[in-house]
Formats: sequence, structure tokens, C-alpha cells
Amino acid sequence: MTEPFDAPDVIATKRDRKRLSDEQIDWVVDAYTRDVVAPEQMSALAMAILLNGMDRDEIARWTDAMIASGERMDFSGLSRPTADKHSTGGVGDKITLPLAPLVAACGVAVPQLSGRGLGHTGGTLDKLESIPGWNASLSNEAMMAQLDDVGAVICAAGSGLAPADKKLYALRDVTGTVEAIPLIASSIMSKKIAEGTGALVLDAKVGSGAFMKSEADARELAETMVALGTDAGVTTVALLTDMSTPLGLTAGNAVEVAESVEVLAGGGPADVVELTLALAREMLAAAGKPDIDPAEALADGRAMDVWRRMIAAQGGDPDAALPQAKESHVVIAPTGGTLTRLDALGVGVAAWRLGAGRSRPGEQVQAGAGVVLNAKPGDTVSDGAALMTLHTDEPERFERALAALDGAYDIDAEPGSVPDGSASIVLDRIG
Amino acid sequence: MTEPFDAPDVIATKRDRKRLSDEQIDWVVDAYTRDVVAPEQMSALAMAILLNGMDRDEIARWTDAMIASGERMDFSGLSRPTADKHSTGGVGDKITLPLAPLVAACGVAVPQLSGRGLGHTGGTLDKLESIPGWNASLSNEAMMAQLDDVGAVICAAGSGLAPADKKLYALRDVTGTVEAIPLIASSIMSKKIAEGTGALVLDAKVGSGAFMKSEADARELAETMVALGTDAGVTTVALLTDMSTPLGLTAGNAVEVAESVEVLAGGGPADVVELTLALAREMLAAAGKPDIDPAEALADGRAMDVWRRMIAAQGGDPDAALPQAKESHVVIAPTGGTLTRLDALGVGVAAWRLGAGRSRPGEQVQAGAGVVLNAKPGDTVSDGAALMTLHTDEPERFERALAALDGAYDIDAEPGSVPDGSASIVLDRIG
Repeated sequence: MTEPFDAPDVIATKRDRKRLSDEQIDWVVDAYTRDVVAPEQMSALAMAILLNGMDRDEIARWTDAMIASGERMDFSGLSRPTADKHSTGGVGDKITLPLAPLVAACGVAVPQLSGRGLGHTGGTLDKLESIPGWNASLSNEAMMAQLDDVGAVICAAGSGLAPADKKLYALRDVTGTVEAIPLIASSIMSKKIAEGTGALVLDAKVGSGAFMKSEADARELAETMVALGTDAGVTTVALLTDMSTPLGLTAGNAVEVAESVEVLAGGGPADVVELTLALAREMLAAAGKPDIDPAEALADGRAMDVWRRMIAAQGGDPDAALPQAKESHVVIAPTGGTLTRLDALGVGVAAWRLGAGRSRPGEQVQAGAGVVLNAKPGDTVSDGAALMTLHTDEPERFERALAALDGAYDIDAEPGSVPDGSASIVLDRIG
Repeated sequence: MTEPFDAPDVIATKRDRKRLSDEQIDWVVDAYTRDVVAPEQMSALAMAILLNGMDRDEIARWTDAMIASGERMDFSGLSRPTADKHSTGGVGDKITLPLAPLVAACGVAVPQLSGRGLGHTGGTLDKLESIPGWNASLSNEAMMAQLDDVGAVICAAGSGLAPADKKLYALRDVTGTVEAIPLIASSIMSKKIAEGTGALVLDAKVGSGAFMKSEADARELAETMVALGTDAGVTTVALLTDMSTPLGLTAGNAVEVAESVEVLAGGGPADVVELTLALAREMLAAAGKPDIDPAEALADGRAMDVWRRMIAAQGGDPDAALPQAKESHVVIAPTGGTLTRLDALGVGVAAWRLGAGRSRPGEQVQAGAGVVLNAKPGDTVSDGAALMTLHTDEPERFERALAALDGAYDIDAEPGSVPDGSASIVLDRIG
């Protein structure tokens, strides 16, 4: 017997609502990485954790064990401080695209290791890959050089960071164990701490389009992550933000890039600008530059300059025309009045089904697919006017996309009706 | 999309404390048998069922789905009614050995499909295999012929009965999901219903040596199984019986065969005789012969005759000397007085560690290994007298076996002290 524990005993501990010891956690994460703990054992443990929970100390130890499964990066050799942002995922959430160059333009380096979309939430890398020539995969050396030179990099996380998390995330995705706050928090924070950023701002989304549907759950997740980051020596704050309706007017890949470029050009939807600036202020403050106003760098074109250099450094052509879908379908307002509700989940699922997202890891996404909104909650719409336009290369996808939009919006004929959504997109700040 | 459901959706249903639909249950059991639902998905579902439960209708449907995964046997062509017994497992539980020939001697055929031991509870087949020449594997035809001729058969269940259950049981064993009442009940009853017995008597054990430690859990399991059997048209009753101390004076393989032969010869420990007769009466009554007193067939040697024919029909020599272990170790009473407690789990784990059981499926067991008791709760023991004797072929096993017995018994020096155990071994009758 060379192993210090038996997997069934560790599973039974959490099944019976007891604390996992530090030694049990270290062993089970390491043994799972080594294929000694089998997938069917880890999934049973994940379900027990989902249903019976872990306390703060268990979550911190679990996070450390996942960090210890791989390499750690080190940005301390850079001449600038570093700050990173992580969103728990939403619909139309293209904020990373304008945010990274904006913060870099203000003198803080942004090493943004991003992921791909799965389910109804989009992936930053999928969006950027709609830019002709742009490459998501960088070596650690190329990433460091770009950070030094341009100040911002958005790329895929290498396979060396927290490999235990990668393996566990893929397992959770097929075993109904994604929605466990301890596992979500440790998954996100293990990657961010291993990445070596000096400061981290979390965008904890709440609402129908987020994984956390209730504010209480989103707050618990945000508080857990802030505690994990702080304990690991990373200055960490979280904004609790509304995800009941899509961010901006686009949900997809190329359509979101186009909208991000509008924001960098000084235009774009008010909610995208508001959230980009709010997160930029937090990142600058967390990186020790609280006095810099990012609105200036957005207005005077410095953020756009960094964007162009950042895209070009990874092989992309910032002036190239973006791909467009072959087919489109306009959704007509069935009545006139005020749009009082436009459900983020419905729009997200529609964009997903149009081909902007994938239903299996590794699947190809369509660059041009997605939803472009003509109205947002609070806007007045006319009977028979276009409410939104659906885009895809494959017209047979329209039917299921339209089904996702069934019941996803309300139009109130009474004058002066107000939308469900809150006035400000930022609901609270934690940390 | 040829599959009607997605495994993660089915898992999420039970994770979120909702009812599984009939269609979901039929699909997930069938798809697991077909390797479409992966082991890591089924183990997550098993953990969700363990922690969130299933209602009676869900359990019945789950049982039906497991029966439908394989063949069903049919004993209706026999000239005699059939009755079977199932024990939820205990320490020293050799009752099947005298019981099957006894009931057959009373005119009711006993098709006893049995299992092997795993963990601290022994397996009927492991015990019988200590008889030189005896063979546990019979074809369905050979089983039917022996039932017709001898009236009793104890053999291994063929691979055709409830294959979904075999696969699921092996999975539960390594994923900490054995202790789920819905899964235990459906596992046992799917095999017994598929086996085709006309009547079934359940020995639902409660106490330290049983899987159900509390009477409430054992009662819930028994009631669930009686309802499943009754709904499937099998006359089913359950006895709730005490498993706080070992049954009889032996726990092992050959030592339990020897004790069973003593009972068939008209002797043997009182508790083994009591439970054998109680279960025989229930089996006879359930098979429509309530007026036959099995005590007569035990006293006049008819049960022993059937035993000898049953063993011989499967290649065993009923007159052969039974294997004996190479080494023995006597446990001495540290003080004189009344033995007030002798813990079934401690003795069961000791016998297991001596080599009578296996820690992995397929492992070889020792025929001669086990524990022979010199005293039972209520008996008076003298200071320095032998309390029990441990047997094994490998003396290095004594140390861990003795560790299992540490604190497993109490001797009270005061005269007239009474044991913890109840007076009668049968605690209640359900059905």
C-alpha cells in the first residue's frame, strides 16, 4: 500500500458531511492528476461537495492543491505592475476586449489568460479568433515579451497551469457538478493565482444569463474568491454585476468584436462603456494607481492604439473586415410599447444555437453567428419594428434559436412602464 | 441526436432534489448498460440519489429498469412452489446453508442465487467452496434439474440476470455510494424478481455488523424491499434481526460450514437454530405451506439428507474433511465475569483480515481462516480462559486482526450483569 488514503474513504468523508483533512485534499487532487483516483470516484466526490459543501479552509487547501499540480508564472520581472480581470461568464460579455488595452494604456500590464465558450456563455478567445490571422496560443516567453512591449495580452492558458483543474473541469462539465460554489471558486482562483498576477478584479455576474441566478449565490461565490485571492497575496476585489439582460447590443463572436472596437473608438452602448470603466478603475486601484482616470485613455484614443498593437502582435489584422454570417432573420416586435424585459439566458441560448457557441469541447464555432439587438430594456419599440436580428451560416438553426427566444422578452403597451433591470449595472463591490 | 436524454440533465434533476421521470430512469439504466452513460456520470447520479433520495415510485421504476436489462428465469414448470431467502449481510451469517435444505425437505423448492463476500460480511459461495469439489457455477438447465431432483440449489447468479445491477454494484463499491437505501433495495430486488422466485423472505439485519446500523434504516430498507416484491407479484416478507453480535460461534468459511452441519445434525448454537427455523417458517408460509413445522425435518434428519444430496449434486463431498488453517492464536479473557458485549463488526473485520474475506473483487479467500468464539454475550468467562481463537494460514495477519478486536468486547465482573443484546434475535416482522 503506497497510497496514504483510499478514494472511497475520502468520498465517504464528504458524503457523511464531515470536513476533508488537508492531507485528504492534497492526496485526492494529486492522485486524480496521476490517474490513481478514477474519474468515477472524483465525480462522486464532486457531487458530494456540491451537495454538502466545503468550508473556507477546505476550499483554500483545495485551491492550493490544484495550483501545486502545475507550474506557476512570474511577472515580477516586468517594469509595470500587473492586474487581471475574470468574469464568471455572461451573455454579450465582451468587456475583456476593450478593458485589457484600456488598462494597459494607463500603465498597468494585463496578462489576460482566457478561455473558450461552453454552453450559452461566450468565450473571449472565440470572439478574438474572428479577427483574420489572430492567434490565441502563445509560449510563455512570447507572452512575457508582448506584456513588456505592448502591455496587454489576451491568450489561451498554457497546459502547464493547474492541470488538475483542467481535468476536473472537463469531468464536472459532463457529470452535472459544475454548479458547486467551492469548485467554481477554486477552479477560477487556482488558475489566476498560478498565473501570477499582482492584482485581480472579479466580475461576479448575477441573473438569468449568469451561472449564479441569485444575488446570494453570486455574493457567496465572490466573497469566497476574494478571500482565496487575498490569502494567496493577490490584491483581489469583486464587482457584483447585473446579468439579467445581455451586455451591449451584441451576443456572438465577430459582432462582439465590432462592438468592442466601437467602445475603443469612443462610442458603443452605455452599459458596456460603464462596466469597462468601472472594472478599469478597480484594476488600476488594485495595481496601485488609483488616481488615473481610464476615461481619458478611452477618449483620447490611447486605448485604441494599444488594441491595434495587441491584435497585430498576435498576428491579427486590426483593419481587416470581420466575417459576416451568410443568413439573417429579423425578429419583429409583436406589439408597440416599452421593452420591459429581455432575458439574457434566452438571448445567450439563441446565439449559442445559431452557432456562436459549442455543445462539445473542441467543436468549431461560427465567426459570424450571433444576435444583434435593436432595443434594450427601457427602449420604446414600434409595433412591427425589428426587435433583433439573428445571424448564422446555417439557416436550419433559426428554428431552435427562435424557440430559445420564446417568452424571453416583454413589451408593455402602457406609457411610462419601467424595465425590471436595475439602473446601474454594478450592484455591489466586495473586498 | 439519437438519445432521448442527456446524462448531465438527468444527473441535475436528482441533484436539484426533483423526481426522476419514468423515461429518465428507463433511459439512464439502459444507457449505462450500453456504455452510453459513462461511469463518472453514473457515480455522480448515484451520489445524488444517496444524498437526495428517491421516492417509492422512482425506486420501483429503477428496479424494473434493472430487471429489463437482462433475462428473467421461470420456475413455474416445477412441481413444487418456490421460496428464496435474502440476507442483507452479517457476521457469521451461515443461515442459508442449513435453511435451503431444510425448506426443501419440507416440500418447497429453494433456488438460492448467492454472492461472494466483500468487506467484513461473508459470502455464502465462499463458505461452500471450502467443501472439497463443490462447484458454485451452474447452467440454468443444471440449476432447474437440481431444483426438480433435490429441491434446493445454492449457486452463483448467472451473468444474464440484471447485468445493469452487476455493473452498478461494482461502481458503487469504489465510489462511496453503497450505503443508499434506494440503490440497495433495487439491487437486491431486481435480482430476486428476475430470478423468478414465487416467494421471498428477507433477513434485514440491524446492528454494528450490518450495513444498516440503526433500526430505523434497516426498517426503511426492509419496507422498501417488501413493497417492491409485493408490487412485482412476489409474496415478500421481512424479518428485522439483530446483528450486534455474531451469529453462532463461527465467522469464516470452513468453520461456518462445520457449524451449519452441526445444526443440520440437530445441534449447533441456539441463535443459529432459532433464526434458521424462524426464516424456514416464513418461507413455508409464503410458499403456501403454513402448517408444516420445519423443526420436525431438522430433528428427524430429512434436512441433513437434502444437504448431502445438494452438496453432492454440485460435485462436493459431504463426508470430506474440511480445510483447516495452518496457524491459530487464542484470545484470552483479561478478567473474569460476564461477557456483556461482543461486537459483530469487530469480529467480522478480524475474520476478514485473517483471510476469510477479500478486499478486492476476484481475490482468493482462505478456506480455513476465521474466528471461532468460545463465549457469547451472557456467558460467564473465567480470568485467563480462551475467549476466542483466530485462524489463518498467514501468521502475519494476526496483528491487524487483533487490532480489529481491540475494544470489541466488554466483560463485567459484577455477578448478574446482563448483556446489551436483545433476548430474541428476531426484532420484528414486516409484510
